[in-house]
Amino acid sequence: MSEAVLVLDMTRDSIAPEARAVEKRRAILPRVAAYLARARGKGMPVVFVCSARRRTDKWFLKHWELANEIWTPGQEPIPELFQPGQDTVVHKRRYSGFLQSDLELTLRELGVDALQLIGWSTSLVVATTTVDAWQLGFPTTVVSDLTVAHAWGGHSVEENQQSSLDFIAAMAKSRIATSDELMR
Amino acid sequence: MSEAVLVLDMTRDSIAPEARAVEKRRAILPRVAAYLARARGKGMPVVFVCSARRRTDKWFLKHWELANEIWTPGQEPIPELFQPGQDTVVHKRRYSGFLQSDLELTLRELGVDALQLIGWSTSLVVATTTVDAWQLGFPTTVVSDLTVAHAWGGHSVEENQQSSLDFIAAMAKSRIATSDELMR
Amino acid sequence: MSEAVLVLDMTRDSIAPEARAVEKRRAILPRVAAYLARARGKGMPVVFVCSARRRTDKWFLKHWELANEIWTPGQEPIPELFQPGQDTVVHKRRYSGFLQSDLELTLRELGVDALQLIGWSTSLVVATTTVDAWQLGFPTTVVSDLTVAHAWGGHSVEENQQSSLDFIAAMAKSRIATSDELMR
Amino acid sequence: MSEAVLVLDMTRDSIAPEARAVEKRRAILPRVAAYLARARGKGMPVVFVCSARRRTDKWFLKHWELANEIWTPGQEPIPELFQPGQDTVVHKRRYSGFLQSDLELTLRELGVDALQLIGWSTSLVVATTTVDAWQLGFPTTVVSDLTVAHAWGGHSVEENQQSSLDFIAAMAKSRIATSDELMR
Repeated sequence: MSEAVLVLDMTRDSIAPEARAVEKRRAILPRVAAYLARARGKGMPVVFVCSARRRTDKWFLKHWELANEIWTPGQEPIPELFQPGQDTVVHKRRYSGFLQSDLELTLRELGVDALQLIGWSTSLVVATTTVDAWQLGFPTTVVSDLTVAHAWGGHSVEENQQSSLDFIAAMAKSRIATSDELMR
Repeated sequence: MSEAVLVLDMTRDSIAPEARAVEKRRAILPRVAAYLARARGKGMPVVFVCSARRRTDKWFLKHWELANEIWTPGQEPIPELFQPGQDTVVHKRRYSGFLQSDLELTLRELGVDALQLIGWSTSLVVATTTVDAWQLGFPTTVVSDLTVAHAWGGHSVEENQQSSLDFIAAMAKSRIATSDELMR
Repeated sequence: MSEAVLVLDMTRDSIAPEARAVEKRRAILPRVAAYLARARGKGMPVVFVCSARRRTDKWFLKHWELANEIWTPGQEPIPELFQPGQDTVVHKRRYSGFLQSDLELTLRELGVDALQLIGWSTSLVVATTTVDAWQLGFPTTVVSDLTVAHAWGGHSVEENQQSSLDFIAAMAKSRIATSDELMR
Repeated sequence: MSEAVLVLDMTRDSIAPEARAVEKRRAILPRVAAYLARARGKGMPVVFVCSARRRTDKWFLKHWELANEIWTPGQEPIPELFQPGQDTVVHKRRYSGFLQSDLELTLRELGVDALQLIGWSTSLVVATTTVDAWQLGFPTTVVSDLTVAHAWGGHSVEENQQSSLDFIAAMAKSRIATSDELMR
């Protein structure tokens, strides 16, 4: 099995002061950097899947604010996590990394057949990307301490983190593991 | 706006004795029949989206039992709900009705630009299809009393029904409405 | 490398009296049956990719006649070529077998990573399916004497057969081979 | 009907000295600029669809040279044709502009339901994108004097230009028109 890491929506805009759950996001960055260094050391491809919104997308902007605008620095990978010239960047337009993007093509040409996923938000981008990965035949591991949920539905970030991981385990049949377990 | 009804996984196999939440599923069938008759009366297309599993699909069968096998009567629409010669049938292979199926093409050729969704399971097929509909630009209404969840993650059917509707409202930006409201 | 055979649009309707190039199509059926028997004998999956048109598809019907209507016997595999219970059937809605169908999913779950293609029309369904296969990373072999073109653009069936095979070789990077070569 | 212009593979690399049919390509640039100015003046969205190859794509590079590498200036729109801040850029990975890209999503969110296509190569990117547009329900017009073929199969650029336009007219049901006719 040849595993890659998908880094979901860890963009500059996603850790801007006004971003969701921003303190929790920032708090795990050093840990993420260590985990990615380890993954690269083992030869695992690291694929940053970055939202790339279009200002012309009235449907999207009816429901969400404009962040991660395509072709702007704000939607690029967080510099301290990114290894230019080595890591791969894929643009996505909606929640799931697989929807109308070249993610599947890119993974197949890299010879990847299993995924570890980190990033945010657990309830949305991680959940939909992981479910799509399952639907397309990729076994997945979600790194619980390197994913962060957001507050919605009257629930706290912590509550949503737990219920989203439960959903992912049940529906995407993912292994849920900590970075400690995976870096051992 | 031209609305269609998506009837999700309301197949013969899905109300077989061994099916999930089968009593709750069977209990709403008369109500579903009335709602569909009303929709047809208003000229709304009714599209049955039916799972059609392949016996050769080792990945799927590693995680789920074989039901709704393609080309068998078990995966056909529940006869008391279905209007042959008028309703449309689309096959799907995984959870979401849109994944590697002709659902989007079929909706666009019918001139449909909005969806009402009923069926099961709310946590899985309804949730993923509704999120994909949103990602593709279709506004959606989920009919709360004509959808049924299943038990998973240590939660009851009722608990999962509520949390799934909350998830759908937050992520797919769906209107959640009762059949009473929609049939008024 | 694990190869499968794609049998393109070899349906009952496609050899009806009014079908395109019907005499040439019928003439090769015994040879096709022998080739498929040999392929099955070598353990190759045989996948019939059958057009399945919808009567509601105004766009399609503006440009083409209604044949191969979905859920009718006319769009089923030609019986003398088909091995029920062993061969796989995939529905397609337009020209390419990969467009909004479950063909790619089905090939991947069968462990297939290369394709031999036969069927009709060489200029249309064979050409678009082969190009899509290439785009998705599948090496292809087109069996020249088991494909048949149709007359269009003022050219004969034979002229279009040759120019279509040239196009396929140049664009889909296919190997063009005879059934004799492949059955040796 | 709301029409957009698709500008196919008119990138910096595509007019580099070593590019295919480069003199013919360069010769039409002033005419293209005039046509695009006119289109913008009529309020038509202009969408540059640019190949964006990945160095890691062994399958692609087995058959084609590396040009239009993703995230490099070489794969950006030709500056004299491009209106930054107004025109849209979409990346594609293979031949067809629609394959695993966000082109369809982008067109739908722009409210586009018909296409005019220009660019190169007529035999490959124009042909496959136009056929996919037809398959997805978009009527198309191919601007004959603003598309350029390449030499392949022992045929000259001019021969391939003519036979490709014939193929597109027959299969994608495109209107073939000159820029003069469209700018009148």
